[in-house]
Amino acid sequence: MQLISIIPGFQPKNDSRLLAKAEALKPGLRYTQYPAPVSCRVNGREISFDALPEQPLRKGDRVLLDFGRHIVGRLSLSLGQAGSFQDAPAYIRVAFAEIPGEFSEDPRQYSGWLSSSWIQQEEAHIDILPAQLALPRRYAFRYVLVTVLDTSPKYQLLLRGACCTGESSADESRLPARSFPDEELRQIYEASLRTLGECTQQVLEDGPKRDRRLWLGDLRLQALTSYISFRSIPLIKRCLYLFAGSRFPDGRMSANVFTEKEPAADDTYLTDYALLFLPALLEYLEETDDKEALEDLLSPALFQADWVLEHCLTQDGIVTEEAAAGSFIDWSDDLDRRAALQGVLIQALDAAASLCARAGDQTREAFYQEKAEALRQAARRLLWSEALGCFLAGNQVSVHSQIFMILAGVMPPEKAAQALDLALRYPGSPRMSTPYMHHYYVMALLKAGQRGPAEKHLRDYWGGMLRTGSDTFWESWDPADPDGSPYGGRIVNSYCHAWSCTPAYIIDRYLLK
Amino acid sequence: MQLISIIPGFQPKNDSRLLAKAEALKPGLRYTQYPAPVSCRVNGREISFDALPEQPLRKGDRVLLDFGRHIVGRLSLSLGQAGSFQDAPAYIRVAFAEIPGEFSEDPRQYSGWLSSSWIQQEEAHIDILPAQLALPRRYAFRYVLVTVLDTSPKYQLLLRGACCTGESSADESRLPARSFPDEELRQIYEASLRTLGECTQQVLEDGPKRDRRLWLGDLRLQALTSYISFRSIPLIKRCLYLFAGSRFPDGRMSANVFTEKEPAADDTYLTDYALLFLPALLEYLEETDDKEALEDLLSPALFQADWVLEHCLTQDGIVTEEAAAGSFIDWSDDLDRRAALQGVLIQALDAAASLCARAGDQTREAFYQEKAEALRQAARRLLWSEALGCFLAGNQVSVHSQIFMILAGVMPPEKAAQALDLALRYPGSPRMSTPYMHHYYVMALLKAGQRGPAEKHLRDYWGGMLRTGSDTFWESWDPADPDGSPYGGRIVNSYCHAWSCTPAYIIDRYLLK
Repeated sequence: MQLISIIPGFQPKNDSRLLAKAEALKPGLRYTQYPAPVSCRVNGREISFDALPEQPLRKGDRVLLDFGRHIVGRLSLSLGQAGSFQDAPAYIRVAFAEIPGEFSEDPRQYSGWLSSSWIQQEEAHIDILPAQLALPRRYAFRYVLVTVLDTSPKYQLLLRGACCTGESSADESRLPARSFPDEELRQIYEASLRTLGECTQQVLEDGPKRDRRLWLGDLRLQALTSYISFRSIPLIKRCLYLFAGSRFPDGRMSANVFTEKEPAADDTYLTDYALLFLPALLEYLEETDDKEALEDLLSPALFQADWVLEHCLTQDGIVTEEAAAGSFIDWSDDLDRRAALQGVLIQALDAAASLCARAGDQTREAFYQEKAEALRQAARRLLWSEALGCFLAGNQVSVHSQIFMILAGVMPPEKAAQALDLALRYPGSPRMSTPYMHHYYVMALLKAGQRGPAEKHLRDYWGGMLRTGSDTFWESWDPADPDGSPYGGRIVNSYCHAWSCTPAYIIDRYLLK
Repeated sequence: MQLISIIPGFQPKNDSRLLAKAEALKPGLRYTQYPAPVSCRVNGREISFDALPEQPLRKGDRVLLDFGRHIVGRLSLSLGQAGSFQDAPAYIRVAFAEIPGEFSEDPRQYSGWLSSSWIQQEEAHIDILPAQLALPRRYAFRYVLVTVLDTSPKYQLLLRGACCTGESSADESRLPARSFPDEELRQIYEASLRTLGECTQQVLEDGPKRDRRLWLGDLRLQALTSYISFRSIPLIKRCLYLFAGSRFPDGRMSANVFTEKEPAADDTYLTDYALLFLPALLEYLEETDDKEALEDLLSPALFQADWVLEHCLTQDGIVTEEAAAGSFIDWSDDLDRRAALQGVLIQALDAAASLCARAGDQTREAFYQEKAEALRQAARRLLWSEALGCFLAGNQVSVHSQIFMILAGVMPPEKAAQALDLALRYPGSPRMSTPYMHHYYVMALLKAGQRGPAEKHLRDYWGGMLRTGSDTFWESWDPADPDGSPYGGRIVNSYCHAWSCTPAYIIDRYLLK
């Protein structure tokens, strides 16, 4: 599954009134000065960072710095010289990694379908030492690898200091005090919020390494987690306005919006993502009761449901194969997404009804309620396998299908846990590959009344990432294939990814109650 | 012959009074805006530069720009995008070359003894297009190769413009009007001055690509050529003061001085280079009659001759093998430098006598005259081979030996032409490899009364570089080995090099008289 849409001549339709409001909500960034690296290796040999400034570095030498935590921000290196005169420029490569494994892949060997330009490395020539080398961009990293590409026989390079400044718009002072029943849960909770904080920039980014961009599926989960932590309410509002303010010419919402310049909806439409705008808006209003947002965003939101109702249903009331193929659900090449998308659509229609209720529009409230109910019936009638005791998409059994049917209230609660269990163990059923999907899995378990298994899965799955040594949660993690990548090379994977930040939300709302 | 000296713990001795004067003489730079490239190739296919901004560039595409003349300065690229959205950074490499051949070598394959950091290339990630990419350093180039390392499947890069700003302290308005008997001589003259102008920065650099530094052997030839052209008198004075102002602790002059920070004599002593300070100072005074410089610099100058007289002569009055091995003369591994250094020393002593005469010190004038004469006698007695009709160094016949013996007035003029001719053709005699050496060869021909052969050689040799398509003169050029390098890879050769700028001087002073 490659997610690269190109619509020739595509121009998003921008609503200047909504975009002006989004712009006014743009948060300032907070800057954090981080302390020195907690560990340092020169050519694989551990030395104290205090001793590093005295360590002459020659051509080919490699210095690995571990800053002890994930950082999104800027790096400046203090460079000096040892030996005789600097009779030639110093030439170095500085590479950044969120996890050490990124350094074990050769960037030149990467041939995946995402751009290799995401690999975080720079080369620099330093004509005159000593020098302060400010690397030119924002990076997402915990580890920095400095490779001396050349000095000259006359002199050696010294790495005298490394100064990191973090950037985020998240306000840590708003975090509530929390106590936890055990250390594991505390660590998972804190890594969730670290992950969210790193993605909380001038938009809610999907990943600060990649794509550094506002994606709808991520936004919804970030917002949920932010409500119980940083409460970046104006920023969440800004993001909702950006999706509503720049759309496809026909009114559909893009899966993501470019925001570095004049906001522009990407020409990528994902059916499920567009529909998720409705629950995302509803959840925002439940937190804020923001009348202005309801007024401005109701119509763009409802349009997403209306468009799918009009264009993406068979006569039987099941989403079309085409609409399902054009939805995300999870990174998976062999997943039949029909049942899952059906579930997402039903949830969107439920949200639409609630939104109309908030707006006092009982007619439309009833309309969406009826539609939701009709689609539930259709699903039960056409997707349920009584023989297997689970939902099918085509002839495929997948846990994805069960999850969204459960969350959409299609599945009788008493059968839910069993269906999930069956689908997980069903021979050849597609595996869940992303924390995004695992979030919905845990939510489905909770909805099925499986609080114990939900907590256990949260501890096993997200805890598994922490047990690799990471202190943030990843874009993609399958414990059975820890080096996997949806992109053809894990060097471009994001290891601090918004859609993985929800354990704190789940712990707060469901497990610590 | 590798020229890398490292004296552990070396600290130059700086004279703050002389260095303050040098600092006060530091020239400002003049900036020249250069027009667009004269030609442009995309993946080898010629296109007009006007059409380039519309040419979508994809991963792997290569754009070769030819600016039509050698430039020392800065480059800024205007980058845009085509296709769909920029969903990933653009990643490019920008390489600079003085001659196209530099691009045909793979920098990763270079393994010579000079630092690979001299290879002029940068990599850059551009997060947001359009962008103006100002490359971070000063480069010496005529050709620029932009390689698109990656974009993404969604968009292509556009190269919309390239803006070059030249830097030099040479004042072109001071160049005299000149007419020439033919086009070849005009072209050689102009390339000489282009070469000199490019090296005329805040010091007289040896080469603006490499080493960008003040070297004594180059300075002498640059100054001679500057007197008949840009007349950068304060800069030449500054350079003389820099050599006198930062020296070895024992008073010897270094072969080169680092000037980017507090001036510092390099820990490289070359016997011939140090001695050349004397003729260089004398020539400066002959141009300027600068009493302050005579007073300040006479003593440091005479010290260079005195030190060699005291430390580098055998009892027979011939320079020692050790002193000869520690002199430059020419890039050559198998050259015996004794006779050549003997000639350089004699010329330095002649210059010392003239400097003393200017200072009104007849006692020391006579002393140096006597010393010079004694060394001439010793050379005639011990180095001359009557059988061969030329000077020997050890048992070696070389044109280098003849040249410096002629220039030192040791060789009877009537035998000079024949000795040069013999040595050039002598089986196994070392070849001249640098324009620096060819300059002295032409000067020796002229001193031998061989004006015709001198002019022919100037046209053949320097004209040969121009016939490769270059518009500046190179650091190293042997027509029999046009791809040779003294450094183990021509990619680090300098193709605009100070010591090659003298044809204009020779034409002006000797050929157009």
